[in-house]
Amino acid sequence: MTPILLNHMGNEENEYINEQVQVKNPNLDTMEEDILYHFSLSTKTHNLPEMFGDIKFVCVGGSANRMKAFAQFIHQELKLPGNPGDIKDICEGTDRYCMYKVGPVLSISHGMGVPSISIMLHELIKLLHHAQCCDVVLFRLGTSGGVGLAPGTVVITEKAVDYSFRPQFEQVVLGKVITRNTELDEGVANELLQCSSELQTFPTVIGNTMCTHDFYEGQGRLDGALCSFSQEEKLEYLRKAYEAGVRNIEMESTVFAAMCRVCGLKGAVVCVALLNRFEGDQITSSHDVLVEYQQRPQILVAHFIKKRLGYII
Amino acid sequence: MTPILLNHMGNEENEYINEQVQVKNPNLDTMEEDILYHFSLSTKTHNLPEMFGDIKFVCVGGSANRMKAFAQFIHQELKLPGNPGDIKDICEGTDRYCMYKVGPVLSISHGMGVPSISIMLHELIKLLHHAQCCDVVLFRLGTSGGVGLAPGTVVITEKAVDYSFRPQFEQVVLGKVITRNTELDEGVANELLQCSSELQTFPTVIGNTMCTHDFYEGQGRLDGALCSFSQEEKLEYLRKAYEAGVRNIEMESTVFAAMCRVCGLKGAVVCVALLNRFEGDQITSSHDVLVEYQQRPQILVAHFIKKRLGYII
Repeated sequence: MTPILLNHMGNEENEYINEQVQVKNPNLDTMEEDILYHFSLSTKTHNLPEMFGDIKFVCVGGSANRMKAFAQFIHQELKLPGNPGDIKDICEGTDRYCMYKVGPVLSISHGMGVPSISIMLHELIKLLHHAQCCDVVLFRLGTSGGVGLAPGTVVITEKAVDYSFRPQFEQVVLGKVITRNTELDEGVANELLQCSSELQTFPTVIGNTMCTHDFYEGQGRLDGALCSFSQEEKLEYLRKAYEAGVRNIEMESTVFAAMCRVCGLKGAVVCVALLNRFEGDQITSSHDVLVEYQQRPQILVAHFIKKRLGYII
Repeated sequence: MTPILLNHMGNEENEYINEQVQVKNPNLDTMEEDILYHFSLSTKTHNLPEMFGDIKFVCVGGSANRMKAFAQFIHQELKLPGNPGDIKDICEGTDRYCMYKVGPVLSISHGMGVPSISIMLHELIKLLHHAQCCDVVLFRLGTSGGVGLAPGTVVITEKAVDYSFRPQFEQVVLGKVITRNTELDEGVANELLQCSSELQTFPTVIGNTMCTHDFYEGQGRLDGALCSFSQEEKLEYLRKAYEAGVRNIEMESTVFAAMCRVCGLKGAVVCVALLNRFEGDQITSSHDVLVEYQQRPQILVAHFIKKRLGYII
């Protein structure tokens, strides 16, 4: 059987219990080789403990360019030696995802939508397991549509909810639908909110995040190729979402939260709202404004990491 | 109202009725500007009829590198002037998708999973509508897991089916689940099979394609980070799929088929099987073998395009 939870009894130098990343699959330990196909990595061809054993923070986000920029940013923030411009994509053998390692921080892109991030999470959790990583915190840094928030507001997710505002994720296993809980780690969320109040550079709230399976009809947009509802029906749905505590809408948080919980990983979702959906559907802000907005979750999570590593007291 | 179907009465030079690409959204014609956000294109900043008005074939696939390679390949096959290496990504303002235009052929990447391809299809159908394109055939060129097929076999999809082998796609609209039909165009599928028998270079079948929302648990893989079922249960599920006519499993076909039908686009899904799922879960073939397999749908669709354009009689 897979070691599900190992509490090391040695001398701890920090407040955290050494919790090894858990896979929930007894088959993995009997496999001679595990090919992490979409990362273009394998337990036979790569020494995963050597490459990744010191990872403590994993930051994931949809866009490959953005996650490269984050890797370069955190390199500067941690004042690590070497040129941030030289950081190499560890997954250069494939174009499915990109991955950058900067000291104890791993930055990975996951594409758009639940299925895309789900493949990445399966292979990431296996990677962290094979590498024997302990005490890992996982962040999703994303963009989203705000619900009743000014553009540029950062939302730290309390619960990831589905299209009916339920904190659950439906997973099909061999043709049967099972549901998984999607509550995220309260401690990490509060610590992030504290970071924001220390930074005092942009508005940040804790709220529920609705995860949909598309960008147009599922999010009530009036500007897709298909639209069968009125402006009033759209607004009614958004109002109901707001009453259920939803403050932003994106496309990956439920499976992220569900897999973090099942595998005993502390996880947080931090997304900036690019627009207020009560006011429109199209993202009309200028390129420069959008770039600045997208840096906000990065700045917040970088602050968290620096505090945890003792750079900021 | 949007023009749903325009039958031009002019002199037709081919056998096809000039069918304009249909959007099903009356709001679009009242918008001053339509920003195709994930393509980084807009009706105000780009002359879409001039850029795309002559498009007759749209080929989409998950991987950006593969769709660039396809663009270069079709450039050579159509013997167009200029250097295939100079083909430029039309969506270079974003890293969500990449897009290449080669004569009447558009090649676009869509990432992995239904949500990712769904965003692309909404914006693609709007683009074709704004550009006033007629008689467009849409192909998905992909990779998949084979069900009872030798690796390397190409599957032309008859029906895209869900995890219960039903030919339908569930779409959430404002919190309500609606179902859409996922049958694909029979004529195009048969024409593709005919192309394969002319080429005689790789085995090709017509069969049903199961579309799942993840790569591991939903497809019955034993090698994910999570696995709660046995090898025997997995094989039983695959056997049931086979009996329902499923010959391969991928992650985008249902929404592709559903949106093609709703918008009156002739669509086809052509995927190569990288492995036989009855025999394993991991993709263990060498890089070179996988590259050759991935060219097979491209070769088949290129042959189809050349025939339609009169390059091959």
